[in-house]
Amino acid sequence: MQIRFDDSSLRSEVVGEANGITSKEIREHTAQAIEALKGFKKISEDGLQGFPHLPFQTKTANEILKFAQSVRGTFDTVCLVGIGGSALGAWALDCGLRGPHPVQPAFSTRNPRLVILDNVDPSFTAAALASMDPKKTFTVVIAKSGSTAETVATFLIVRDWMMKKLGRKAARRIAAVTTIGSGDLHKLAEREGYTEFGIPKNVGGRFSVLSPVGMLPAALVGLDIRKILKGAAAITHECWQPDLKKNTALRAALMHYLAWTLKNKPIQVAFPYSNYLWGTAFWFRQLWAESLGKARTRDGVEVHVGQTPVAALGATDQHSQVQLYIEGPNDKVFTFWTVEKFSGNGRIPKAKLGLEAFDYLGGQTLAKLIDAEQRSTAAALAEAGRPSCTFTLGKLDAEHLGGFLQLMEFETALMGELLNINAFDQEGVELGKRFTYGLMGRAGFESYRERLKEFEKKRP
Amino acid sequence: MQIRFDDSSLRSEVVGEANGITSKEIREHTAQAIEALKGFKKISEDGLQGFPHLPFQTKTANEILKFAQSVRGTFDTVCLVGIGGSALGAWALDCGLRGPHPVQPAFSTRNPRLVILDNVDPSFTAAALASMDPKKTFTVVIAKSGSTAETVATFLIVRDWMMKKLGRKAARRIAAVTTIGSGDLHKLAEREGYTEFGIPKNVGGRFSVLSPVGMLPAALVGLDIRKILKGAAAITHECWQPDLKKNTALRAALMHYLAWTLKNKPIQVAFPYSNYLWGTAFWFRQLWAESLGKARTRDGVEVHVGQTPVAALGATDQHSQVQLYIEGPNDKVFTFWTVEKFSGNGRIPKAKLGLEAFDYLGGQTLAKLIDAEQRSTAAALAEAGRPSCTFTLGKLDAEHLGGFLQLMEFETALMGELLNINAFDQEGVELGKRFTYGLMGRAGFESYRERLKEFEKKRP
Repeated sequence: MQIRFDDSSLRSEVVGEANGITSKEIREHTAQAIEALKGFKKISEDGLQGFPHLPFQTKTANEILKFAQSVRGTFDTVCLVGIGGSALGAWALDCGLRGPHPVQPAFSTRNPRLVILDNVDPSFTAAALASMDPKKTFTVVIAKSGSTAETVATFLIVRDWMMKKLGRKAARRIAAVTTIGSGDLHKLAEREGYTEFGIPKNVGGRFSVLSPVGMLPAALVGLDIRKILKGAAAITHECWQPDLKKNTALRAALMHYLAWTLKNKPIQVAFPYSNYLWGTAFWFRQLWAESLGKARTRDGVEVHVGQTPVAALGATDQHSQVQLYIEGPNDKVFTFWTVEKFSGNGRIPKAKLGLEAFDYLGGQTLAKLIDAEQRSTAAALAEAGRPSCTFTLGKLDAEHLGGFLQLMEFETALMGELLNINAFDQEGVELGKRFTYGLMGRAGFESYRERLKEFEKKRP
Repeated sequence: MQIRFDDSSLRSEVVGEANGITSKEIREHTAQAIEALKGFKKISEDGLQGFPHLPFQTKTANEILKFAQSVRGTFDTVCLVGIGGSALGAWALDCGLRGPHPVQPAFSTRNPRLVILDNVDPSFTAAALASMDPKKTFTVVIAKSGSTAETVATFLIVRDWMMKKLGRKAARRIAAVTTIGSGDLHKLAEREGYTEFGIPKNVGGRFSVLSPVGMLPAALVGLDIRKILKGAAAITHECWQPDLKKNTALRAALMHYLAWTLKNKPIQVAFPYSNYLWGTAFWFRQLWAESLGKARTRDGVEVHVGQTPVAALGATDQHSQVQLYIEGPNDKVFTFWTVEKFSGNGRIPKAKLGLEAFDYLGGQTLAKLIDAEQRSTAAALAEAGRPSCTFTLGKLDAEHLGGFLQLMEFETALMGELLNINAFDQEGVELGKRFTYGLMGRAGFESYRERLKEFEKKRP
């Protein structure tokens, strides 16, 4: 497995001192980076944060695999009911290893598809149910708290839809991933007899892809979760090295930190040149935004910090976003994600059509073209003084993807340390949730309903 | 048809003067807005910009419909080969009116699916071809210039794949949308006998959805293009009214302009609360970014202006992005897109499970829940001093979607006038294209290859 990080186009030598990082700046902040690593190591060793331990939980992985083997072949669709961190990891893995819809092979009981119900759009939910057969569907409902409103509402619909066809046997085709021992989903799972897998208390949604949250759906659709975890384990060892040359996560965190704070880049564009990494880009968007968008430091100082992550897809978005990236405000740092060796190279047939715009491409490959596009975009950005860097995956397989996901989690956690914020909470979404509970009539939230109604009345 | 715009949460009364627009500021800029409309009217009347005329080109629409009727039933897949503005409009329409993959109904010759090849990822392209049958595929290749490298490369592959099975008859199952009379794609289409549809010279890719660029794929998959154009025509009449109360596009342009420039919001979040509008959000992202991300004003003054568009999906991204939106930097304006009446309301079954987190939701609807989520998010943002506004579509059908797309194009064009920039070019992407041509060995671009190699060698 090989994941490289090239930060040369973040450097002042390439994009100038106003936008690029100098060697002196790196030297001056190296000790801070090593301290950040130490700080996070303590958090991990104290058991306050669990994601670094997930790749090594082979017992859980074996249980998942055993369960998946016992039910595989009886369904052509895995219906995942969950939202945010309960859905994005599974999407990243499915898209990354089996390709984006709609170009996945036809689904069947031997090759089940993954349908993710991660929204409460009634048209979307109805269309999804119409596309599935309750007798050929295995449902995984995921909620750490066991009470997420969107997940509970959708699950009530899916459960009813299954029970109407299968009666009480529906329970055999439902698994719940939640906090074992607490919460209403756990209670329901126990009562109705769903298979249950636990989410460790010290693992939050956006850091949970390597827990049963991501591994159960992955195993059910046939992905090799052992290899995913193997790649993540290898990266984890690297991520604890107190050496900027050996530790890619630490190096990337430091360079992104300097670009963001010293060079004033409030936006990071995650720019994969691979359709298969599109799901991972959205998974990353949550990881970066929720972990690092914070009102206060750990010491309570009001900072309103947060780099806005933007997902762009190369080469496609060269024809959509790059005009802005080159000519607009110089407020972005670009992080390319490239794949060194694609499965197949996409040979372009020799055409000899006597047409200049066609003939030079004939006989070459899409692999060469997409590589040329990425290098050209990076160079054009650099000429315009826009800093970029590149993660390169040797290839896109279970090991590399598992490693890359873990690498991004480490980088994010270390960035939280560098910023002196708590990267693991999400206090900012509480008020909106309470307003929703109020509007939906949940007991105890009546005052929030009144407050919201008052707000809406007072608007001009 | 009804599309409403509510800008009350952009106002100082709701989010304070630092972040919200005052009545005085609106009054002071009203004359500028009316001037912007006049300026764009002249551009349109002089024939320099063609998109306002597209909804009225019924002859072209009839030709497209006649052609679509003549070939419908012979294919189960429409394969669109195109990138950027040649692809995003068709996706917006297909996703908006038939739903996102993977929850569309099973495809067949009566209900063909749309597969968009808008990237040169070799794995993606190979998987797409493997999922299609050349005998049941109709290919639409779209390139205004007729020479876009990605489109040409992919089309050479698709053409070869079809010809291997169909020989010369493949030409009957290919249509080209390009500039009639010029370019290499046009020459090839004439020589090989593809059906051709033209792109007007004064319509650029990102403003072309209502031309054959969007209408041909839409008609081929069975969408009602007459109704799409009807909705767009109705909005067009409204968009020429020199009155902020009657002209939603002008009102929205002015309010977004004031939020962006006076209140310093360099990011706009396009925030649909509908999975069906997700394609439209990506279409909008191109429209806004490429049109308004510019280095210079029309007078040549260097400005590096451009608001970064971000696509977020409600309610889903409340569990991914809203933490950042509420607690991070106050650098965003939020534009919600809501649907008043969904097809079906998504009734949540009454459960009476004795579980507090489940029972309050039973008997209610997803339609009510998604509405509550959006209102709650808007209110929570407002309490944190974050400005937002809302477009509401009465429902999501061909007329409303056609109207909404045209409304967004008018708003963007008017924003260009307010900023005194050329919203219709994209000079910033030329250098990257030339580097790519150089690397791929296109004649005449040798010096760019050298320049790029030099750049890569010099990096630290």
